[in-house]
Amino acid sequence: MKKIVILGATGSIGDNTLDIISRFPDRLQILGLTANSHDVKLEKLIRTYAPKVVALADPKAATALENRMGRGGVEVLAGIEGLVEVARLAEADLVISAIVGAAGLLPTLAAIQAGKTVALANKEPLVMAGEIIKREAELNGVSLLPIDSEHSAIFQILHGERHEDIKRLILTASGGPLLRYSDEQKRGVSQKEALAHPNWKMGPKISIDSATLMNKGLEIIEARWLFDLPPDKIDVVIHPQSIIHSMVEFVDRSVVAQMGLPDMRTPISYVLHYPERAPLALPSLDLAAVGTLTFEKPDLKAFPLLSTAYETLKTGGTLPSVLNAANEEAVDAFLNAQIGFSDITPVIQRTLEAHSPQPAQALEEVIEADRWARTEGRRWIRHYANA
Amino acid sequence: MKKIVILGATGSIGDNTLDIISRFPDRLQILGLTANSHDVKLEKLIRTYAPKVVALADPKAATALENRMGRGGVEVLAGIEGLVEVARLAEADLVISAIVGAAGLLPTLAAIQAGKTVALANKEPLVMAGEIIKREAELNGVSLLPIDSEHSAIFQILHGERHEDIKRLILTASGGPLLRYSDEQKRGVSQKEALAHPNWKMGPKISIDSATLMNKGLEIIEARWLFDLPPDKIDVVIHPQSIIHSMVEFVDRSVVAQMGLPDMRTPISYVLHYPERAPLALPSLDLAAVGTLTFEKPDLKAFPLLSTAYETLKTGGTLPSVLNAANEEAVDAFLNAQIGFSDITPVIQRTLEAHSPQPAQALEEVIEADRWARTEGRRWIRHYANA
Repeated sequence: MKKIVILGATGSIGDNTLDIISRFPDRLQILGLTANSHDVKLEKLIRTYAPKVVALADPKAATALENRMGRGGVEVLAGIEGLVEVARLAEADLVISAIVGAAGLLPTLAAIQAGKTVALANKEPLVMAGEIIKREAELNGVSLLPIDSEHSAIFQILHGERHEDIKRLILTASGGPLLRYSDEQKRGVSQKEALAHPNWKMGPKISIDSATLMNKGLEIIEARWLFDLPPDKIDVVIHPQSIIHSMVEFVDRSVVAQMGLPDMRTPISYVLHYPERAPLALPSLDLAAVGTLTFEKPDLKAFPLLSTAYETLKTGGTLPSVLNAANEEAVDAFLNAQIGFSDITPVIQRTLEAHSPQPAQALEEVIEADRWARTEGRRWIRHYANA
Repeated sequence: MKKIVILGATGSIGDNTLDIISRFPDRLQILGLTANSHDVKLEKLIRTYAPKVVALADPKAATALENRMGRGGVEVLAGIEGLVEVARLAEADLVISAIVGAAGLLPTLAAIQAGKTVALANKEPLVMAGEIIKREAELNGVSLLPIDSEHSAIFQILHGERHEDIKRLILTASGGPLLRYSDEQKRGVSQKEALAHPNWKMGPKISIDSATLMNKGLEIIEARWLFDLPPDKIDVVIHPQSIIHSMVEFVDRSVVAQMGLPDMRTPISYVLHYPERAPLALPSLDLAAVGTLTFEKPDLKAFPLLSTAYETLKTGGTLPSVLNAANEEAVDAFLNAQIGFSDITPVIQRTLEAHSPQPAQALEEVIEADRWARTEGRRWIRHYANA
């Protein structure tokens, strides 16, 4: 029996993960769940999946839940310390890290330091602190299993292959809902348009990141650490149908691609059963029905954040943490109607320009850069809001 | 140093294999070469690659070569016994089986029974005697490494995967040069048209097999034995660009594809270096430059030999050997202008209908069925030639 902890259980990755776990009651068992503040949904999950321990980042929500659940049932922990405690549970075999954004960093690192196999659905911890996470995973002999469909594709392809045989990774990008928009059109984009991803149903943050292609930029940084490859070995190709999830070219020019209908349950199933696979009753990909797959070079003028991500990764140190924080703030400001869609890019770029990159060997340096970038980013948000 | 024997060294696979071996003089070494009757080309190869032993199936050609080479140099063997002796050379680590057609069966089996790792470029031995070859490979602990681009694709994809996790194989087929021809147009097809494969430069036999889709039918049978899967787990999809060489769907609905520019040197390189890969200075696949990949269901009415192959495989026993022999005779008759392109299918089908399938546990049964089918096939060829 594989005992599983889900950090961020009330989001879309949590839903899909719980759906699959419930199909394998003889193999997979929920041990712990955490959420930010959504105590009502977490209560429902407790009654369905009977975890031993749960945690809510919001102490008030934790108190409310504890009062409703009463004594003698599930253990309810509170605050970031509570999340970290669930991430380190002695009995856990696998920790699913699915907290959106930078908030996932500390619990994820705690799970790694406790020697747990960690499945990463949130890319931000790796973007912020890739060097530290990679180092801690190596020190603790921990496997990092990606859930992001692109990185799951590459991870599946590389299973059984030698690292030295990799020529390059090719991340596919749908291009998002604004692929064919002119700069002029992008200026007037509504939240609804920017959120309407053509292929994937996802949360709002990652949907906006897909519209700016920042998501692909973050994935380049994620891939750099997950697969230990320099930026010049990580390419991006636009593939609007999102059928090929990503590819690897090997030194003998063989290119291997992982494909499927856009459904997060396949990559989630892969990490839950890894290194095996298990049947998943979903529709099969029918390529004759799909008919056509297309590919094009990314337009770096139309989507400058892709180049920004490459440059940020090349500089390294605290700069990726700044990129991530400025992006989170800018997306948040767009979703709160403070700035327009076309302001997201300059907010991020101005914040990066204002930063003096430092080494990022210690967690404090990364967190300090994140804190600094949020302040600086909000300064630029106010600037563009008033422009 | 890996010591290599090439059976059928003077053909197109031989050329490509020698090209790659010559790039790795510190890792790969030519030990033995065989050919049918092309003594002049074999002599050139001897002077370039310095094998220890060679064989020519044609005894006259062998004598001519021996006289020219003189004493003290390479050992020249003759006849099918000579080919078998080269296939079993004690020092050989890897035998490349690249003899076109049924003639490859005995030397290939000899290599397997001598415990050699065998790389199969010719599909006919597996089509004729799949059950026997599979059994002998298992008895002798021999790995069979496919070179055919489709089977190489599947073999690469399955490396590191569990057999029980396979849902189905998906062989891609270009559809050949006559994909969009009507039945009426096919009746008037010239040899030149039928030989003009859109993507691959290959020998005449396999080019005609691609025009009738018999090649894909033979590959289904080949796949059944190489990958130990029933016919209903082997699908075919038409993919005119020949960029995706084949795919595997796993039980979790993950589909993995192997791709590349159509160049046999990649799959040949794979078997030469297996289980490693080695750099091969060929152009990289640029999907953005390719632009579009398309897929469609095969038209079983327009290409009935595909259904014929499935039915033949389901019946099994000596029937696949009859299919292969009747096809070889019919293609030969078309290439010799005895019958028209549209006569190939009925010659094969009438021959199959006339056969009473027997078990095919012993080599003699397979060879007898092959012999019978050639006689019967030629009877039908005369019938259609005079129609």
